Amino acid sequence: MEKPLILVVNDDGITAPGIRNLIKVMRDFGDVIVVAPDSPQSGKGHAITIEDTIRCDKVIIEKGAQIEYSCSGTPVDCVKLAVNKILDRKPDLCVSGINHGSNSSINVIYSGTMSAAVEGALEGIPSIGFSILDYAHNANFKESIPYIKNITKQVLKHGLDNGVCLNVNIPKSIKGKKIKGLKVCRQANANWEEEFEERIDPKGKTYYWLTGKFVNYDKGSDTDEWALANHFVSVVPVQFDITAHSSLSSINKLLLDE
Amino acid sequence: MEKPLILVVNDDGITAPGIRNLIKVMRDFGDVIVVAPDSPQSGKGHAITIEDTIRCDKVIIEKGAQIEYSCSGTPVDCVKLAVNKILDRKPDLCVSGINHGSNSSINVIYSGTMSAAVEGALEGIPSIGFSILDYAHNANFKESIPYIKNITKQVLKHGLDNGVCLNVNIPKSIKGKKIKGLKVCRQANANWEEEFEERIDPKGKTYYWLTGKFVNYDKGSDTDEWALANHFVSVVPVQFDITAHSSLSSINKLLLDE
Repeated sequence: MEKPLILVVNDDGITAPGIRNLIKVMRDFGDVIVVAPDSPQSGKGHAITIEDTIRCDKVIIEKGAQIEYSCSGTPVDCVKLAVNKILDRKPDLCVSGINHGSNSSINVIYSGTMSAAVEGALEGIPSIGFSILDYAHNANFKESIPYIKNITKQVLKHGLDNGVCLNVNIPKSIKGKKIKGLKVCRQANANWEEEFEERIDPKGKTYYWLTGKFVNYDKGSDTDEWALANHFVSVVPVQFDITAHSSLSSINKLLLDE
Repeated sequence: MEKPLILVVNDDGITAPGIRNLIKVMRDFGDVIVVAPDSPQSGKGHAITIEDTIRCDKVIIEKGAQIEYSCSGTPVDCVKLAVNKILDRKPDLCVSGINHGSNSSINVIYSGTMSAAVEGALEGIPSIGFSILDYAHNANFKESIPYIKNITKQVLKHGLDNGVCLNVNIPKSIKGKKIKGLKVCRQANANWEEEFEERIDPKGKTYYWLTGKFVNYDKGSDTDEWALANHFVSVVPVQFDITAHSSLSSINKLLLDE
């Protein structure tokens, strides 16, 4: 039997420890093709490169059976290039990450990691984004590996609903505190309260840095924020149909009534 | 009574005819603040600028009562900067566009125009993205103006559901063919079939241009694609909760069963 073909992508860049760990895990499941950005692409959301050219070159970052391509584009560009140019058949699985930092709650829509997984779902590939709640370059991925393996195994075996991918967030590894298990949840209703830091450049002109504070407005215990705060792995099924179906009739009334 | 405060943004850049037309329409409804990108930002999706600085300077592009800022960031950065740094109160309305080109169906997730509207909704502002199915710089906006006015009037009067914004697409103006009216619809299930155009640079190295063909898989007559193909204005309510609620139980079964 043919081995599964697994596409690995991320947004932190092809040399980030998160993707190196994910590649290692995926090699146990099948043939691994990596198409990942040549530089950090955090916060790129579902951006694609349409006003500029894209480079994509075969590289060797580490020894191993994986085949790797380094791409100048966004995470979504990587998936599109892999599927439409590099691979000669559709992958059986697309995994993105392991992202250094949370993609829970509203972060999902800003995340290059998750946008790559959504793009995988759009291409009809069972797709999973993995993130760990640890921004550090030397984040400890050890405790997350069994969860990644189990989720990967089940998705390879059963597939996913059409148009749906998974957003998996994993608590930061804390000594003496074991991850309690896994919760399937909804995206918490939370947001960033931004504060732009204003600075003056050497020529006397103003510029800004985007900073902010994450605020969870959601008291539900069925959310990803609740699961993570309680030291569970959170798994949110995510879809690319963003129609607010429940508002269709009220909008109809609002616009068609005079 | 205080006049409504209206934030205008786009993704084609602050000098694009689409936003200039939208500013003119909005001046009839209230005090207009423009915070828009200094260069084209099409296809930027929900990208934000976190690895770089942001410039945002007051400018005068055209005469009029509007106050305008030109911003080096993405459309979503523009909304965040406007709300958190430039404005001293929350706008009563955020409008994005008029985009030169369609943001119907799956285009909504790649669109900087629509991501700005989604960001407005996230900030608790009634928000609308407007697009016309005409990529031309000199697109004819005349027929679209009454629809934009009517939708704006109703949204200012009634507001929108929490977490919901509107994705309005307007057919291309065709001589002798009148727009038939307005349809509230769902996002059609369609996608791009990409073809990367491969070229060789003067140094002999390969690069790519992203190109593709839009394919509608959806036969429903309740979709935005149907409405536009039949020369109606399409209005899709859009939400930022991208949880696939209908898949929660199947994913739970898949992952928790051994």
